[in-house]
Amino acid sequence: MTDFFAGIAPVAYEGTESGNELAYRHYDPNATIGGKRLEDHLRFSVAWWHSFAWQGGDPFGGQTLQRPWFGDTLELAKMKADAAFELFAILGQPYFAFHDADIRPEGADLAENTRNLEEMVDHIGQKMQAGGPRLLWGTANLFSHRRYMAGAATNPDPEVFAFAAATVKTCIDATHSLGGENYVLWGGREGYETLLNTDLARERAQAGRFLAMVVEYAEKIGFKGQILIEPKPQEPTKHQYDYDVATVYGFLKEFGLEDVVKMNIEQGHAILAGHSFEHELALAGALGILGSIDMNRNDYQSGWDTDQFPNNVPEVALAYYEVLKAGGFTTGGTNFDSRLRRQSLDPVDLVAAHVGAMDVCAAGLKAAHAMLEDGTLEAMRAERYAAWDDPAARAMLSSDLEEIAARVAAEGINPAPRSGRQERLENIVNRFVS
Amino acid sequence: MTDFFAGIAPVAYEGTESGNELAYRHYDPNATIGGKRLEDHLRFSVAWWHSFAWQGGDPFGGQTLQRPWFGDTLELAKMKADAAFELFAILGQPYFAFHDADIRPEGADLAENTRNLEEMVDHIGQKMQAGGPRLLWGTANLFSHRRYMAGAATNPDPEVFAFAAATVKTCIDATHSLGGENYVLWGGREGYETLLNTDLARERAQAGRFLAMVVEYAEKIGFKGQILIEPKPQEPTKHQYDYDVATVYGFLKEFGLEDVVKMNIEQGHAILAGHSFEHELALAGALGILGSIDMNRNDYQSGWDTDQFPNNVPEVALAYYEVLKAGGFTTGGTNFDSRLRRQSLDPVDLVAAHVGAMDVCAAGLKAAHAMLEDGTLEAMRAERYAAWDDPAARAMLSSDLEEIAARVAAEGINPAPRSGRQERLENIVNRFVS
Amino acid sequence: MTDFFAGIAPVAYEGTESGNELAYRHYDPNATIGGKRLEDHLRFSVAWWHSFAWQGGDPFGGQTLQRPWFGDTLELAKMKADAAFELFAILGQPYFAFHDADIRPEGADLAENTRNLEEMVDHIGQKMQAGGPRLLWGTANLFSHRRYMAGAATNPDPEVFAFAAATVKTCIDATHSLGGENYVLWGGREGYETLLNTDLARERAQAGRFLAMVVEYAEKIGFKGQILIEPKPQEPTKHQYDYDVATVYGFLKEFGLEDVVKMNIEQGHAILAGHSFEHELALAGALGILGSIDMNRNDYQSGWDTDQFPNNVPEVALAYYEVLKAGGFTTGGTNFDSRLRRQSLDPVDLVAAHVGAMDVCAAGLKAAHAMLEDGTLEAMRAERYAAWDDPAARAMLSSDLEEIAARVAAEGINPAPRSGRQERLENIVNRFVS
Amino acid sequence: MTDFFAGIAPVAYEGTESGNELAYRHYDPNATIGGKRLEDHLRFSVAWWHSFAWQGGDPFGGQTLQRPWFGDTLELAKMKADAAFELFAILGQPYFAFHDADIRPEGADLAENTRNLEEMVDHIGQKMQAGGPRLLWGTANLFSHRRYMAGAATNPDPEVFAFAAATVKTCIDATHSLGGENYVLWGGREGYETLLNTDLARERAQAGRFLAMVVEYAEKIGFKGQILIEPKPQEPTKHQYDYDVATVYGFLKEFGLEDVVKMNIEQGHAILAGHSFEHELALAGALGILGSIDMNRNDYQSGWDTDQFPNNVPEVALAYYEVLKAGGFTTGGTNFDSRLRRQSLDPVDLVAAHVGAMDVCAAGLKAAHAMLEDGTLEAMRAERYAAWDDPAARAMLSSDLEEIAARVAAEGINPAPRSGRQERLENIVNRFVS
Repeated sequence: MTDFFAGIAPVAYEGTESGNELAYRHYDPNATIGGKRLEDHLRFSVAWWHSFAWQGGDPFGGQTLQRPWFGDTLELAKMKADAAFELFAILGQPYFAFHDADIRPEGADLAENTRNLEEMVDHIGQKMQAGGPRLLWGTANLFSHRRYMAGAATNPDPEVFAFAAATVKTCIDATHSLGGENYVLWGGREGYETLLNTDLARERAQAGRFLAMVVEYAEKIGFKGQILIEPKPQEPTKHQYDYDVATVYGFLKEFGLEDVVKMNIEQGHAILAGHSFEHELALAGALGILGSIDMNRNDYQSGWDTDQFPNNVPEVALAYYEVLKAGGFTTGGTNFDSRLRRQSLDPVDLVAAHVGAMDVCAAGLKAAHAMLEDGTLEAMRAERYAAWDDPAARAMLSSDLEEIAARVAAEGINPAPRSGRQERLENIVNRFVS
Repeated sequence: MTDFFAGIAPVAYEGTESGNELAYRHYDPNATIGGKRLEDHLRFSVAWWHSFAWQGGDPFGGQTLQRPWFGDTLELAKMKADAAFELFAILGQPYFAFHDADIRPEGADLAENTRNLEEMVDHIGQKMQAGGPRLLWGTANLFSHRRYMAGAATNPDPEVFAFAAATVKTCIDATHSLGGENYVLWGGREGYETLLNTDLARERAQAGRFLAMVVEYAEKIGFKGQILIEPKPQEPTKHQYDYDVATVYGFLKEFGLEDVVKMNIEQGHAILAGHSFEHELALAGALGILGSIDMNRNDYQSGWDTDQFPNNVPEVALAYYEVLKAGGFTTGGTNFDSRLRRQSLDPVDLVAAHVGAMDVCAAGLKAAHAMLEDGTLEAMRAERYAAWDDPAARAMLSSDLEEIAARVAAEGINPAPRSGRQERLENIVNRFVS
Repeated sequence: MTDFFAGIAPVAYEGTESGNELAYRHYDPNATIGGKRLEDHLRFSVAWWHSFAWQGGDPFGGQTLQRPWFGDTLELAKMKADAAFELFAILGQPYFAFHDADIRPEGADLAENTRNLEEMVDHIGQKMQAGGPRLLWGTANLFSHRRYMAGAATNPDPEVFAFAAATVKTCIDATHSLGGENYVLWGGREGYETLLNTDLARERAQAGRFLAMVVEYAEKIGFKGQILIEPKPQEPTKHQYDYDVATVYGFLKEFGLEDVVKMNIEQGHAILAGHSFEHELALAGALGILGSIDMNRNDYQSGWDTDQFPNNVPEVALAYYEVLKAGGFTTGGTNFDSRLRRQSLDPVDLVAAHVGAMDVCAAGLKAAHAMLEDGTLEAMRAERYAAWDDPAARAMLSSDLEEIAARVAAEGINPAPRSGRQERLENIVNRFVS
Repeated sequence: MTDFFAGIAPVAYEGTESGNELAYRHYDPNATIGGKRLEDHLRFSVAWWHSFAWQGGDPFGGQTLQRPWFGDTLELAKMKADAAFELFAILGQPYFAFHDADIRPEGADLAENTRNLEEMVDHIGQKMQAGGPRLLWGTANLFSHRRYMAGAATNPDPEVFAFAAATVKTCIDATHSLGGENYVLWGGREGYETLLNTDLARERAQAGRFLAMVVEYAEKIGFKGQILIEPKPQEPTKHQYDYDVATVYGFLKEFGLEDVVKMNIEQGHAILAGHSFEHELALAGALGILGSIDMNRNDYQSGWDTDQFPNNVPEVALAYYEVLKAGGFTTGGTNFDSRLRRQSLDPVDLVAAHVGAMDVCAAGLKAAHAMLEDGTLEAMRAERYAAWDDPAARAMLSSDLEEIAARVAAEGINPAPRSGRQERLENIVNRFVS
């Protein structure tokens, strides 16, 4: 036991009247919503990188957070894991997620990285056997080390491609070994800084083949988890290849992977791509590729990933509305890809941030479910398209321009617009969130 | 003859030393660049909508421009066409482009619209027989009339779908009749204002079928021109379905149209989507779907389409560099989707704006060609990827993660990064543009 | 009586359990909050321009809304005023606001504009005598007519300056005559499109003198209302002189007007300037120049003024928190500078939009008041600065660098940072809004 | 001598035909432009922080650059200084600039920091006596160390205020001792992350007093250099107090410092604030507070400080046009606040980046000077305002609204707008830059 969270008791559900800062006001894991436990709806996951590895630096300043486990030894990595499981015990969330580089010290080469990873997988595996959360997903950090500065799968140097491929193999192995329910790829450096030194077509082809190899390997070793890609635009590289859901969909179609790979969608990445979170979720839902979410909040007015804890219930409710419409999570969940502000130095800040975020999500999901149950929104949506139920209307879609033009002429079709009723729909949402 | 451009003589090439504001300093149509006339490289086109139909309004103010042909009668539409051909005679550019709504008065119904369009096609066709520019492309305006406020192909009302389909038929007919070399679709209202009233999956399906019908009809009537889609994000609807090249590519793949439809790429739309113009061009080039360009300049700091005339040679040179690398234009060209600032009231402003823009493009294309001829940039790019020429490197792409991991272990692969040399590459570009 | 709102009854407060779309759920005007009626806290105002004059156009499409009073005659202007008072009777809000151009038809010259304005002021004055709302503020539209395309006070043409000055005189007269509690200036075209044709220093001087003349005239005629400036960045002109609160403050200081002019602060304009709404309010509060607010909501991801009705209670609560901390409104109020989406065609849309927005504001203000009553936020803020209460700390501010350096050396001052507790503070806010 | 730049000879001017990558093509320091040497116009300065201290990290990855002097000892700091003077000898630029933290190792407390700084000032002073560049300006780094995470002058903890004040004293001393021509303050953490824990009014007052103490101390010790403030918006803190030139001007007016403090204006900071660089320069020129520039280039599509080397001559020309119109630099200069891309690993990259940037600036300044000499732009600007030369027009500015209204009525003033001629003006600029 570390004593990092000394004095902080496990967080319990106490309801909205509670004055206890470290109690859940909305998140009652055992409450039943639409026949499913709230815990099973939300499937919360704590992220190792932000909560245990991030040191508080920003482009204009260094480390602000001080943790007894910071350092690059196996001993400290184990202390970090111990502290992680202490936070998990306090929060009681059912999942966690990690990159290899979050849980193991950095080695001098692939062999040492692999040994370190395996030792930490053992350590974490033992802790998991004592109860506590399961692994939502694992992933490989292919962007922090300077070897990846020009990309991993898309690197101009085939040796980097090789190193990345071998690293991903170890990470899939680790994820499989710990019973992970998904494996995620985020292409942090899969993009370019300047077109002047970039062969776009070649790099796309490398990325496509790399992804196919991941799918093949997972299948070969019997990993049953879902392979997920996480889209992100314009950061850290000036142009990222996995810009947004629509872009990744085209990429999957190009390489024939659209039936086996799904999306891990992050709020902040959606915002940076110029979309709403709910747009990205709805599009993935419509395309049948919605897998999991990285929940956070991006400052709308910053051009970079701010990864704040979510705190706006009306917005979060709209996101879960799309998740529920798509059938809810299966292997996926709500992973907090959220980090403390760099001035939030205290252990209690880390606990409180998660508690607040879990409550916001719980309130949002409950509102989303209530909106669906109520049915008014869906009824108004259906009514808007109702004229397409007419067989003559539907027949047009199997017709051609000439036939349609003839019909317009014959019937004197001259459509009058109808109200889109946006404000009324927004008011209906507000009945459930305010 | 109108007397709108009275006193303005045809613009001639006079070279960079000329002090004549209305002379070409860089654009000598007959100069030969890489074995091709400059005119045939650039294939300039003047846009009817901005140059003859736009009245100068903005969201906070009404019409500023006053033209004798403004009004909604066939007589005025013909005067507008006459003035257009007078500008064409002054500029000497080889192409023009239009929407139906630019060249005909608005009628009360489809029948009247069609009659008006046909009469104007006759009028324009006669003028074309007297020489002057050819039709680069035609298109249908499916976004200005209030019937389209909730979309055309993607409208919740099948009658609007029908009206739009019938309208597109008339526009393809018009384009075919005038010998247009392409037909363009820009989905100005194909998007949504709020997800709350939108069925994304259904609207995508409608759009996919609509596009297929366009392709089928063009084929049926023997139209040999290229069908082009023009991507644009977030304006006028909050979310546009044809966000950018990558998004449209995914859309084409979904509906099996990627081999028959190409892209008309606009500088301003690229910028609004968070990309550089050259990115969109390079991506389309890599995907084999680069068709034509809408040349203009978007204010980088405005969130909306500013459609300014291009004026930055270094930027334009990078765009043409990608066009030339993709083989140059075949059916496509450089259409000025550029409009006067609303305070630029005088006829001479309209002429000078085109002259300046054509010169900027000519200087940019010449620089782009010289960079390719010089070869340093391409040599440095090739060198960066040279290690992939090694058969062992290439073999990895047909290998699997395990084999690669074994090779990394066996060979102790531990790659050291090499400089990306971005500043040096940028300096090389500057040798050609400054 | 027009029959535009036929069948829509006055909106009553029914509480949060009401299922009535056209009832107030949060806005009980007579509820007492902190010893003040809710109506007197919020001081709602309906804006003539958006609710009665806006036609639904956008840069890519024309009019969508159809109102029986659209047109440019005095008779229609009176019908518009009658419909306005019908909406006011339905909503029961205490105030309204207008530009001259909203309420009168456009004349051929200043004399006709003035006659039209005076006739409409009479008409509206008579309606006001029958009860109904009062005038929160009047203003002059110095941006829509083409004569103002290059600015009003800042125009390069002194005749435009003169026309604008004379127009403002008539608008102050009208506002005074109708008992307006404020007079607002928004410099819609006071800015520039390109520096190349602009004399910045000269235009600033013109604007400074113009504003001083407004203040002098108001005083001369005994107008007791507050003069307000409304900041806005980058739209409609590329660069607006009244960018944000800080910019306008510097401008007022330059021309010695900081004690007599206050700010009318709009949510959307704050967002477009890169600030949060609460930042602009807090800064104006700190500088003693907070006057009134234009309440709306800007899409964070659009670069232009979207003027949506507010719908996010957590955000609105933070805005009213700053208003309450600054002492609440005196002459100012909550003016809905909000407009329907252009697809919201029906009369009920206009009513529902206001009802929803008023409820959001009422819920926000109640939450803001409760947060202040609770006191935790203010206590935590005070604690953060508590060390400054030490006399030795305070003395530093009257000291100099040398003395302070000596003290640092002598006392070995080496400060350790303390947590900023941002997430905990955000959680506290969420107790009141979710 | 380090051997870091081994094999790289001093860079000479060779003219535009030179094929030598490491020669100046435009920058001939001794060329005379308008009676002044080009070197004296541009007054180039190399920045210690980017060129010698930056390690290549970004929010998603660590150090990429490897320099033999990286580390935190005095010996390495001296090696860094030696390498700096080697680069200076290669480039031949007349100035350099630094923060204390760039040139000295970080100590455990203020006393050690001061001793380290003094030792390095001695070392650098000795190198300066051997010839080479002079000090354009010094400054204190009050943002990187974690003690400053909540601000320096604006910190809630008075001990941080004290530490910062004492630090600035040592930096002014150092700057004075090395003959610096200016002293700069950039408030990297003078702002706030969340209003919820911030007392805006108090923090502004602290900042105002701090700045006054700087001015007083400089005067006391006889420092004749100019005190400069560098505005920047929204990074690193969510809201920076010194947002832009207009904001800082208001701040200076509030604290009565507008006659003694001038601006150091950075291209990238202008862009991030929503302005063009030339706007910020023109505004500072109009307000009489233009001091110096930090030359770089910000990616228009990233929301953060990208600090790239400038490479667009047309843009740079417009910036120098405003500098020249304001009279050119006196104590100020062109400091390259520009850094290598993190993949540009080689010594030659660092040299080439500066060479290219200096050439771009030289070409820009020459074009700017030629435009002024030519006079067409200024003549067209003057003509636009010419009607204000009329005494009756000018008299209006000392008149009042009533008199003006009477004149409008009497003279029937009804102004007709004139063309703003923006495209023609842009074409004129292009004559000088393409």
